[in-house]
Amino acid sequence: MAQLTSNGSVPTLADVARHANVSTATVSRCLNSPDQVVGETRERVLKAVRELGYAPNFGARALAAKHTNTVGAVIPTMENAVFARGLQAFQEELGRHGKTLLVASSAYNETLEDEQVRALVARGADGLLLIGYDRSSELYAFLAKRKVPALVAWSYAAQKEQPAIGFDNRAAMAELARLVIGHGHRHIACISAPIASNDRARGRVQGIGDAMTEAGLAPDDLLLIETPYGIETGEAAFRQVMADTPETTVVMCANDVLAIGALRAAREMGVRVPEDVSVTGFDDIEIAMLAEPALTTVHVPHREMGRRAATLMIQMLRDGDTGQSVELPTDIRLRRSLGPARSGDLSKASMA
Amino acid sequence: MAQLTSNGSVPTLADVARHANVSTATVSRCLNSPDQVVGETRERVLKAVRELGYAPNFGARALAAKHTNTVGAVIPTMENAVFARGLQAFQEELGRHGKTLLVASSAYNETLEDEQVRALVARGADGLLLIGYDRSSELYAFLAKRKVPALVAWSYAAQKEQPAIGFDNRAAMAELARLVIGHGHRHIACISAPIASNDRARGRVQGIGDAMTEAGLAPDDLLLIETPYGIETGEAAFRQVMADTPETTVVMCANDVLAIGALRAAREMGVRVPEDVSVTGFDDIEIAMLAEPALTTVHVPHREMGRRAATLMIQMLRDGDTGQSVELPTDIRLRRSLGPARSGDLSKASMA
Repeated sequence: MAQLTSNGSVPTLADVARHANVSTATVSRCLNSPDQVVGETRERVLKAVRELGYAPNFGARALAAKHTNTVGAVIPTMENAVFARGLQAFQEELGRHGKTLLVASSAYNETLEDEQVRALVARGADGLLLIGYDRSSELYAFLAKRKVPALVAWSYAAQKEQPAIGFDNRAAMAELARLVIGHGHRHIACISAPIASNDRARGRVQGIGDAMTEAGLAPDDLLLIETPYGIETGEAAFRQVMADTPETTVVMCANDVLAIGALRAAREMGVRVPEDVSVTGFDDIEIAMLAEPALTTVHVPHREMGRRAATLMIQMLRDGDTGQSVELPTDIRLRRSLGPARSGDLSKASMA
Repeated sequence: MAQLTSNGSVPTLADVARHANVSTATVSRCLNSPDQVVGETRERVLKAVRELGYAPNFGARALAAKHTNTVGAVIPTMENAVFARGLQAFQEELGRHGKTLLVASSAYNETLEDEQVRALVARGADGLLLIGYDRSSELYAFLAKRKVPALVAWSYAAQKEQPAIGFDNRAAMAELARLVIGHGHRHIACISAPIASNDRARGRVQGIGDAMTEAGLAPDDLLLIETPYGIETGEAAFRQVMADTPETTVVMCANDVLAIGALRAAREMGVRVPEDVSVTGFDDIEIAMLAEPALTTVHVPHREMGRRAATLMIQMLRDGDTGQSVELPTDIRLRRSLGPARSGDLSKASMA
């Protein structure tokens, strides 16, 4: 392929115009509103674009078109299947509307999330998908000033103004906790991701407290262990629970990955699930069903959430709409890891 | 916080300069080379940036600085833990050097990958991480013309010019196949992702053929089933293998997720693993060890690969270096899913 620019540098709009023998305005029109250019001219311009390896300069193009057809998302981690799954559906639906998704992951770090949001805005993201409500008011103010619509996902709280598509983490976990208490459990432990700047995790822990209060139990008796997301951390937290409060009959984990770690620790310790101790999760990722024993958990419609988030985002971008929040239902998947509370102490004998 | 721009529009560099009572050149210097600005002035400018909600305009800034400190990556899917894990390490290392990572996922679709690469370049990515070598020569030519360094990961082939950090998929799978054949297996089936535009999958299938040839078996006898990535697809493929070629004694899967699906199908069909049929994977993701039975697989150092890819990328960006390719070692994790080949037919009786 011949090098057709005059000086071997990065090809410009003018180079494309010269090569296709049209005006620069025609090249712009071809790239931004191809429908307005007759077929033959369009073909010639696009051929020149291809041959020269021209890519529109963001700055110029954004100024002309006011939008870049790029949507950004900042998620806490790529290593959690729930975000991956929701984003895949989000992207598929955006793709059907000609939009590209760029994703950054913040490692559950608020400062990093802040930087990534600003970087995506600087790179020209038309809109942003963010996970949960918790972030500084400065960042929300920044987005409002920059007129970049932001949609919250994975959380839904009726009283919040920020447009959101998600579910009520607190109510969902309260429902599971009622089922757990219905199985006779009174000594409940909870392993959660750190709750300080994570409204999803915080809501789930509060939900357990709500169900305990309803059942006449003291929510302060809930043993709460906060630990970073991961299988190994869930494993260590389960060991700590059994060492600190051997009277525990159920360990409710705020996500499935921590629960998988708890199941692994139980197996290594010779603690039978659910005969000695029950374990529950939250999310219903694929390994929840494959785990041994299969995990009782809260099923979250991740794909549905991603797909509908895209529909809402497209509407917000097109109509300058503020976005009507959507609450999605969750439901409980009762599997073998939850059983009746054992009576009496966990005998030392049953532990390897 | 007061709205300080003159007309309520998106704040500009000039607005910041006016608010901080400095020249626009000083604002630019503060943003691009803060070390060159005295502390007090810098503080005043950064305060104005915060108060106005100013974010540098990419176009102008890129023209001035020639780089954006953004690195892009296009991966086949976010729903595979191996990419998530490698990218997390890639990002952590980039972050230590003040760079932001933006990720797009192509759903294993070459056309989509092409669009996403061009979108990342248009958004100002300084460099790109791409998975495997397979893509059109036009796309490589485009990147060369735009002078955007591209680093291939997850693949390594000594004869390729493109800088890469990865491992030899073919040699790694050949080593596993030798171990499988050493267990007496002669009737081998392989479940793989589609190999046409995926050099990693293609290499792994070829590796099985290499080991078969060495052992005096005909590589053409390998039953190959190609299916998209996923647990359900692996499950369906295993059922097809057992229906089409019941003489199969081992099913070698080109990745762990397909193998997990195969294990699930085997359990549902009442086929015992490894007594009736052995199953192997590739990648060594976390569930490989948690699966029942635990999965024999090829361990790939995903985090190490991500970390070293970042180091190499930073060097390429800083020095305009072409990048020295790196081959990483893999090793085999022998677990319970691989056993000796059964002798004789898989009796109908043993199947539920």
